[in-house]
Amino acid sequence: MNFPSKLIEDAVNEISRLPGIGKKTALRLVLHLLKQKENVTEDLSQALLALRKDIKYCSKCHNVSDETVCSICKGLKRDKSIICVVEDIPDVLAIENTSQYQGLYHVLGGVISPMQGIGPDELKIESLFERVRIAPDDEKVQEVILALPATMEGDTTAFYITRQLKDLGVKVSTIARGIPVGGELEYTDEVTLGRSILTRVNYSAD
Amino acid sequence: MNFPSKLIEDAVNEISRLPGIGKKTALRLVLHLLKQKENVTEDLSQALLALRKDIKYCSKCHNVSDETVCSICKGLKRDKSIICVVEDIPDVLAIENTSQYQGLYHVLGGVISPMQGIGPDELKIESLFERVRIAPDDEKVQEVILALPATMEGDTTAFYITRQLKDLGVKVSTIARGIPVGGELEYTDEVTLGRSILTRVNYSAD
Repeated sequence: MNFPSKLIEDAVNEISRLPGIGKKTALRLVLHLLKQKENVTEDLSQALLALRKDIKYCSKCHNVSDETVCSICKGLKRDKSIICVVEDIPDVLAIENTSQYQGLYHVLGGVISPMQGIGPDELKIESLFERVRIAPDDEKVQEVILALPATMEGDTTAFYITRQLKDLGVKVSTIARGIPVGGELEYTDEVTLGRSILTRVNYSAD
Repeated sequence: MNFPSKLIEDAVNEISRLPGIGKKTALRLVLHLLKQKENVTEDLSQALLALRKDIKYCSKCHNVSDETVCSICKGLKRDKSIICVVEDIPDVLAIENTSQYQGLYHVLGGVISPMQGIGPDELKIESLFERVRIAPDDEKVQEVILALPATMEGDTTAFYITRQLKDLGVKVSTIARGIPVGGELEYTDEVTLGRSILTRVNYSAD
C-alpha cells in the first residue's frame, strides 16, 4: 500500500502493530482521527502514555492497580481466606463481572509452557506460595481456587501449584468444566461432554 | 464493566471512541500495550500526535500530504489534463493502488447531503471549478472523471458538478458501474445488473 504522507504511513504502521488490527483498519482509524478535532487524538495519546508510565501492579496479587495494593486486596468485604489463581488480568475482570466471587486473586502473568521456555520462575508462582505461608492467623488462606485455561499448559501449571500447596495444607479446587449455560448437548465437543459426565454434580448433596 | 485502575479505564474509554472498536477490544489492546516494552506505547502515541499536528492538505487537490502541494500534484509523469473527483482520501489510495490512473485528483471531503446539512459550500467543489478555470494553457483540464459513491448523495453531487463544468467546456465522465470482475450474474442486485445492461460497452468500438 502506498501512502500519500509519511506521517500517515508512520501512524498506520504503529497502529497495525496492535493485535487484530491490519493496515486497512489502521488506515481507517487514522483517517477517522484526522476528521476529528485535534484534542481527540491528544486525549487518546495522553491516556496511552499515562497508562504505560504510571500503571502499577498490586504487590500482593499482581493485578493492575493505581496504587501499591489494589482495591480488591484492600477490600474490607473480601474473604481473605480464599485466593483465586488466574492466568492474566482479563480473567480477574471476567470473574469480577460475574459478582459471584468475594475472595482475593492471584495473577500468574502466564502459564507454564516448556515449549515457549516459560517455567515457574518466569511466573508469579513462588509469590503465591509466599502469600499462603506468611498470611497472619486471622487471614489464613483456607482454599486456593485454580481458574486456569483448560489447555495442556494450564493443566501443567495447575498440577505444579497443587503439588506444592498440598505440603502447605491448603485446600485446592478448580473451576468446573462442563456444558456452558444455554449450551446444547449435541453441539458440545466430546472432551467437554465427557468431562462433564465424569465430574457430574450430585443433586441431593448440592 | 468495572476496571481495576482509573488509568486503564481512561485508556479503554479513549480507544473505544474509535470507530468499530468496543470496550472489550479496547481492553484487549490496552492489556497488550501493558505487556509490551514502554517504547511501543510511546512510538504509537508520538506517531498519532505528529500525524494530527503536522499533517497538511494539498492546496490543489486537498489530499493529505506532508507538504503544501502533494506528490501526485507535483508528479512529473502525471497527466495534468485529467482530474478524478473523489469523495474522500481513501478513494485516492484505492484508485492509486490500481495503477490504472495517471491523472490528478480532487478530494471533495464529502458529498452533497441536504439531510445532513452538507451543501456545496461545505465541500471543496468551488475550488475544483477554480482549478479548471485558472489552469495555464499547457495544463488545460480536458476531462473530469467523477468517481463518487453510487448513492443518492453521490448522484446529486455528480449532477451538480456536471452542470457547472459544462459551462466551462470540460468533458465530464463517470466511472463505470456494473458487475464486478469475477462477480456472478445471478447474485448481482437488480439495480446494478439493470444499469450494466443500459450502459453496455460496444465491443467493436472498444
